Amino acid sequence: MFSWFRRRRSAPTEARRLRSREELSESAKVDLAELAPGVIPYLGLVAYLELEVYQATSRAAADAPDLVAKEILSNAAGMALNKHQEFAAEIRRRHREPAVVMQPYAAAIDRFVDRVTPANWNELLLLVYLCGGLFDDFFSQLARGVTDPFGDTAAEILSGESGRAGVATLLERAIRENPRTGDRLALWGRRLVGDSLLVARASLVLSDNEVNDEKKIEPVFTELISTHIKRMDGLGLTA
Amino acid sequence: MFSWFRRRRSAPTEARRLRSREELSESAKVDLAELAPGVIPYLGLVAYLELEVYQATSRAAADAPDLVAKEILSNAAGMALNKHQEFAAEIRRRHREPAVVMQPYAAAIDRFVDRVTPANWNELLLLVYLCGGLFDDFFSQLARGVTDPFGDTAAEILSGESGRAGVATLLERAIRENPRTGDRLALWGRRLVGDSLLVARASLVLSDNEVNDEKKIEPVFTELISTHIKRMDGLGLTA
Repeated sequence: MFSWFRRRRSAPTEARRLRSREELSESAKVDLAELAPGVIPYLGLVAYLELEVYQATSRAAADAPDLVAKEILSNAAGMALNKHQEFAAEIRRRHREPAVVMQPYAAAIDRFVDRVTPANWNELLLLVYLCGGLFDDFFSQLARGVTDPFGDTAAEILSGESGRAGVATLLERAIRENPRTGDRLALWGRRLVGDSLLVARASLVLSDNEVNDEKKIEPVFTELISTHIKRMDGLGLTA
Repeated sequence: MFSWFRRRRSAPTEARRLRSREELSESAKVDLAELAPGVIPYLGLVAYLELEVYQATSRAAADAPDLVAKEILSNAAGMALNKHQEFAAEIRRRHREPAVVMQPYAAAIDRFVDRVTPANWNELLLLVYLCGGLFDDFFSQLARGVTDPFGDTAAEILSGESGRAGVATLLERAIRENPRTGDRLALWGRRLVGDSLLVARASLVLSDNEVNDEKKIEPVFTELISTHIKRMDGLGLTA
């Protein structure tokens, strides 16, 4: 499950070659142009994932122990919902029904969601923070390769405001207050990134691409993992 | 619990005199100018209620049996959240913290929410439809009496799009498919309106107004109940 994660650590040559963010983006762009799904499957997949991020964040808002946390989380939930709605609107502009276009991805994504059950509120926060971030990053990168004028807009929407900086402050507080929370969350973070990367990877397959060429996917995942590590570091957690 | 509701039915004279919507609004405006709370308590109360409407609607979206219903409900949830956020933003513009300003109302409203537990998804839909509608109506009317330039904006925000027409279509379908569902929902609707009116009434007291003059409140509640009956009729339910 953690193979993507470990590979990055054990592949210093590849990582070093791709150190520059500029270089990495260029390289990812080239690869993703080949990997990217057709635009309708892409829109359906992203619309459904953002709906899931909205729902997980709303659940966290509902369970918030105080109104400050509830504000932060409902704000982040609203931003994920806005992203979902922008994708749903684009699907409608193409005279398709969002529910129909999302349907093929629902079962696969729900399987992921059902498997990843947070044991408590802090674990739910970390899920929102890490998975929401990873999915936004991944599909925003993928958008650049979508051969459609909406590709650039999609990348902009996904890399726009997420409200998750506020979620990070809630996590930082919990970790500061209890070091054991940090230890448990570090483990949970590893579990989450492993599973999220599997979903990201599966989504390429689901969207009718033949993605068997590890070399093409590698740089994309290398960047995702690097961003993930930065998020974990930012919280003071060992990735 | 159903006294407000019954009173309307047994007060045909009052109802007839107030039949014209224009007239009713004018009359309500006069009374509400006296009843309306100070603007900060008003903003906190409405911000918290809309947050609750958003949460109930999100819960309904999470439990939706299909993606069409999930779309309709997440859309309505987003609109309630937008309303909440506009009120929270106004609180911040006045250099106050939404969490602090909402706090005094949280406990009282939570007591209401905890008491009104839907037995199933259809009951949750009816709660979203009726209570969301009633609260928007009530606080939009109350806004006209708030002695603050934001009053008009507040009324506009609250009477704006709610996405609940879509929720009504889901209820209509459920009722059409099973007449027993309609019978049970009619009972539940009566329960909901009774409790919502109690919350509306309590909120006048909570916001430091001395509202002991039944004559002043009567027309406001008469209109709320009349709109409630229209909503029930629209669903084919006996109010």
